[in-house]
Amino acid sequence: MTEDDQQARACAEHMYAADQASQSLGMQIEKVGAGFARLTMKVRPDMVNGHKLCHGGVIFTLADSAFAIACNSYNLCTVAASAEVSFLKSAFEGEILTADARERWREGRNGIYDISVANGDGVVIAEFRGKSRTIQGAVLENEENTP
Amino acid sequence: MTEDDQQARACAEHMYAADQASQSLGMQIEKVGAGFARLTMKVRPDMVNGHKLCHGGVIFTLADSAFAIACNSYNLCTVAASAEVSFLKSAFEGEILTADARERWREGRNGIYDISVANGDGVVIAEFRGKSRTIQGAVLENEENTP
Amino acid sequence: MTEDDQQARACAEHMYAADQASQSLGMQIEKVGAGFARLTMKVRPDMVNGHKLCHGGVIFTLADSAFAIACNSYNLCTVAASAEVSFLKSAFEGEILTADARERWREGRNGIYDISVANGDGVVIAEFRGKSRTIQGAVLENEENTP
Amino acid sequence: MTEDDQQARACAEHMYAADQASQSLGMQIEKVGAGFARLTMKVRPDMVNGHKLCHGGVIFTLADSAFAIACNSYNLCTVAASAEVSFLKSAFEGEILTADARERWREGRNGIYDISVANGDGVVIAEFRGKSRTIQGAVLENEENTP
Repeated sequence: MTEDDQQARACAEHMYAADQASQSLGMQIEKVGAGFARLTMKVRPDMVNGHKLCHGGVIFTLADSAFAIACNSYNLCTVAASAEVSFLKSAFEGEILTADARERWREGRNGIYDISVANGDGVVIAEFRGKSRTIQGAVLENEENTP
Repeated sequence: MTEDDQQARACAEHMYAADQASQSLGMQIEKVGAGFARLTMKVRPDMVNGHKLCHGGVIFTLADSAFAIACNSYNLCTVAASAEVSFLKSAFEGEILTADARERWREGRNGIYDISVANGDGVVIAEFRGKSRTIQGAVLENEENTP
Repeated sequence: MTEDDQQARACAEHMYAADQASQSLGMQIEKVGAGFARLTMKVRPDMVNGHKLCHGGVIFTLADSAFAIACNSYNLCTVAASAEVSFLKSAFEGEILTADARERWREGRNGIYDISVANGDGVVIAEFRGKSRTIQGAVLENEENTP
Repeated sequence: MTEDDQQARACAEHMYAADQASQSLGMQIEKVGAGFARLTMKVRPDMVNGHKLCHGGVIFTLADSAFAIACNSYNLCTVAASAEVSFLKSAFEGEILTADARERWREGRNGIYDISVANGDGVVIAEFRGKSRTIQGAVLENEENTP
């Protein structure tokens, strides 16, 4: 594991520890590296919408969390400026979804990340493209300042 | 209230009753009409991310639910095909967010809906554009078939 | 006509005079105001693609020019950061297309504009959403500096 | 060269021969294969906007043409349903732009393609994501029917 990937893992763990939303949805970080992240989540009964399908917002949230882990992997506080998602297939209660986030482009304070969400059969159910903006501060700064 | 709006309300109530995801996030339907919906949601401690801001996925989910209510208001089962969201301002724990969904264009099985999400001061924090696709079935068909 | 609208018109005329691309495509400015613009363009034989339809890029360009006129209407140099377009219907050679650009949101240096493109029958053929970013300089600064 | 790539080339040549818009903008097809295309274009004086930058619509059109060649490479008539573009850097008169289109996802009649546009220094100036929809007919059907 490179130093960049170690830093990426530290950032991911630090962010996840404070991320009540991702935790409450039961997300797990499977892999993380510089500009990369893979998260999984099981579709629970409380994630289903009025059509008995996994709510699109929940699928988006999984992708958005993977995006956040990937774009914060350089220890620079970074937020989502915008995102676009295509819902390609339905997902159902009980399925385990996997979101793979990869950096497509990054320069200065701006980045573009592509996230694919797949179901347990490896079938892609959503494609998400997020745009990031780096703001002030380091992801790990609080930890570093702790005596 | 017109007949169209009455049908829209019936569809909304039917969908919401089955929408575990929107219910579990504490969303409330404030208004609904043909091609229109207004939902509110309070940002809870379990909706906050690692930057201590309301998770973008939660904001998206509120907008997506308003979109779903609006695009299913004609009693034709309709799903989100894609959506794009811009995160304009941060939202914080304790704030009450309001999502206003309005139809921009609709023809045949396709539609475009614009949703603005505002905070308690009426300041827009996100703009969402969703594209819908009508599938088979009526929203209220189960109810109608019930003896 | 308000002062804001007069300034908007002056900005539009100044930009159009230097906009070789819009001129070479035969665009006409029909209306302009603060945060608003309407442009028209006739689909010429050299605007048609391999499917014998107006090239999507040409439709985008018309919408993008209307967006540029609208977002530069405050005499602050503003560029397109991104745009999303849905192609709803085909357009054909000989048709006159109209693009209506309206501001949806603007704050500080950022803006969101919605542009509808319609054909001669008033049928919407494309919906475009553009995001703008204000950079340094005034649209009319060169003119003002001219003795 | 595989059979698939030969078919892709035949489709590209057939489409380009009828594509007055791409020809009039001076685009060149550099490479083409199944689900892939690379096009180049020189920024001419008539492609510049009121800010003296290459018009965003022209950059979009180059990307859109590369997208069209890539998504029609299977000899199935396919059109753009929507597209999103981020303008990352300015392009200037005299520069030669290259658009690389690659398929990200395709199933049934729907596809997603990612197109990067770079300048002569290989710096990416725009990222474009297009969604395609296959309609009736074969790209090469007219040729095949010709005695």
